[in-house]
Amino acid sequence: MTLKKIHKLPRGIFAASLTPLKSNLSIDTELMLEHCHYLLQNGCDGLVIFGTTGEANSFSVRERIELLDVLLAGGLPPYKLLVGTGCCALPDSVELTQHAVKNGVGGVLVLPPFYYKNISDDGIFNAFDRLIHQVNDDRLRVYLYHFPKMAVISFSHSTIQRMVETFPNIIVGMKDSSGDFENMKKNHNVFPGFDVYAGTELVLSDILQVGADGCVSASINLTSRLAAGVKNAFPAEEFKVLQEKLHAIRKEFEKHPMIPALKQMMARKTGNASWINLRPPLMPLSERDGRALAEALDALQFFDSCSD
Amino acid sequence: MTLKKIHKLPRGIFAASLTPLKSNLSIDTELMLEHCHYLLQNGCDGLVIFGTTGEANSFSVRERIELLDVLLAGGLPPYKLLVGTGCCALPDSVELTQHAVKNGVGGVLVLPPFYYKNISDDGIFNAFDRLIHQVNDDRLRVYLYHFPKMAVISFSHSTIQRMVETFPNIIVGMKDSSGDFENMKKNHNVFPGFDVYAGTELVLSDILQVGADGCVSASINLTSRLAAGVKNAFPAEEFKVLQEKLHAIRKEFEKHPMIPALKQMMARKTGNASWINLRPPLMPLSERDGRALAEALDALQFFDSCSD
Repeated sequence: MTLKKIHKLPRGIFAASLTPLKSNLSIDTELMLEHCHYLLQNGCDGLVIFGTTGEANSFSVRERIELLDVLLAGGLPPYKLLVGTGCCALPDSVELTQHAVKNGVGGVLVLPPFYYKNISDDGIFNAFDRLIHQVNDDRLRVYLYHFPKMAVISFSHSTIQRMVETFPNIIVGMKDSSGDFENMKKNHNVFPGFDVYAGTELVLSDILQVGADGCVSASINLTSRLAAGVKNAFPAEEFKVLQEKLHAIRKEFEKHPMIPALKQMMARKTGNASWINLRPPLMPLSERDGRALAEALDALQFFDSCSD
Repeated sequence: MTLKKIHKLPRGIFAASLTPLKSNLSIDTELMLEHCHYLLQNGCDGLVIFGTTGEANSFSVRERIELLDVLLAGGLPPYKLLVGTGCCALPDSVELTQHAVKNGVGGVLVLPPFYYKNISDDGIFNAFDRLIHQVNDDRLRVYLYHFPKMAVISFSHSTIQRMVETFPNIIVGMKDSSGDFENMKKNHNVFPGFDVYAGTELVLSDILQVGADGCVSASINLTSRLAAGVKNAFPAEEFKVLQEKLHAIRKEFEKHPMIPALKQMMARKTGNASWINLRPPLMPLSERDGRALAEALDALQFFDSCSD
C-alpha cells in the first residue's frame, strides 16, 4: 500500500501548545498568540492547538472556534497547525473539524470518542467514518490521536489499517502519545506515507533515526530550541549531548502533573503569573512542588537554555 | 451533620432513560416523549434524562437543551426529572445546569470532568465549586454521578464529605453506579439527608432494606413494572420472588453491551426498529447476540411481564 502525500503539515518539532488563561479562566487570546509566534520563531516547525496539553476538552466548541479565528487573524500560518477536534459528541467533532479545515489547517488531530469504555474496533471505525462523511471536505487530513492512558480508548493496529485503506488521503497520520516507540516504529514502517509523530521528545532521536515525521510534545512549550537543536544536529554526534539534556529536563517535568508543571515554569520563565491559571479539574502545583521543580531545572541550567 | 431536605425529587424507581434516534442519528423527540410518559405510567417514580444510558455525552449542548425543552413542553413533570449536565468543559456544564434548573427539574446529575485522569480530590472539589458559583441559583440541587468504571474519575468519601459540608443544600445526593452496595450504605448512613440512589436494580431490595432513596437503572427502561412491584411489595415476602426475577433479567442484559442490548429489546418489545439506532462509538448487537438475548429473555417470560 502506498499513499500519495498531498498534505502539507511540516515534519519536525511541534509544541502541543499550552492555552494561557485570564484570572476568570477565559482564554487569554493575546498571550496565546504571542506564545505561538514565539514557538514558531524558536525551533518549532509546527504547533498543536487544543491537544491534551492545551486543555482542549475543558473548552466549549465556541471557545475553541473563537481562539482558532484569533490565531489565524494574528498571522499564524494555518498549514503549520494541527488542531485538536475530537470530542465525545459527533456534532461537536464535526463542527470543529469543518471550521478548522475550511481555514486551511495542516491537519486535525482527532481523539476517539472517549466517554464509553470497552468500545469495539468497529465502533471506533464507525465514529471516524461518520465524521469524515459529515465533514465532507476534500481538504480534510485526519491525524489519529492515540493516547491510551488519557483517553483509555485506543487505536489497534488493525483499526489503523482499516482506516488507512478506506480513507487513504484523509487518514494520514498519528500522534502517538503511548510512549511505546516500538508501536510508533511499526506504524511508520507498515503504512508508507502515514505520518508518525511521537508524543514525547524522549524518543526524538529514535524518531529521526527511523525516518518518522517528528515529535509533538507538551514540554516543547519550554524546550523548543533544545529540541530543534537535536533535530538540526542529527545525525552528527552533537545530537547525543543535546538529546540527553532534553531527556533530563523532560524527566524533571514528569515527576509532577505535566500541564500544571509546565504552566508554573512558563510563569517563572516569562514573569507573567497568569500563566499558572488552569481550567478545572486541573490544579496548580503546590508551592513546594513548584519550588522543587524550579530548583531541579536550575541545576540543569534550564532557564538559561530557553532565554534569548 | 443534618441537612434540611428542601428538594423535591421523588424517591423510588427511576429509569435512566434511553434516547431514541432517527435513522440520521438525530434525537427522535416524539418517541422519547412517548417513552418517558410510558415509564412514568408504568412504575417509574422519576426519570434520569441524559445519563450514560441516554448517551448524554454523545450529544451537543444544543441537542440536550432542545430535547429537555420538548419533554417539558410535552407535559413531563419537571420535578420528577434528574437531568445529566456534567461535561468535560465547565462552560458546557454551566449552560446545561442553568437551563435545567431554571426549568424546575428535581435535580441535576453531574459527572466529574472525565477527560483528565489521576485528578486530585482538590481538583474534583474545585470543579464542583466553580460550577455551583457560576450557576448561581438557589434552586440548584446537585446529585453526584459516581460511575468509576465509565468516568474513571470517582468521588472519594472525603470529597463527598467536603462537598456536603460546604454546600449543604446544594450537593444533596448521589447516583452510585459503582455496583458497590457497601459504599452506598456507607454514604446513606454517614450523611443524613443525602439521597443515595443505586445504579442497578440488583440491589433494589437491599436499598429498600437500609432505607436509602431508590434505584436509577438502565434496564428499568424495560423492567419498570417489575421494579415497582418489588418496591410496592416490600417488606412483605412477595418482594423476594420479584427481586429474583428482576435479578435474572438484569443478568441476561449484563452478558451484552448494555445500551445496545436495551435498544435492541425496545425494538423487539415495541415493534419499532428505529429503537436500534445508536450514536457512535456504540454499535448495535450482532444478529446472533440479539437473538440469544431475546431467547434468554423469552425463557424468563420477560416480554409477557412488560406487556399491558
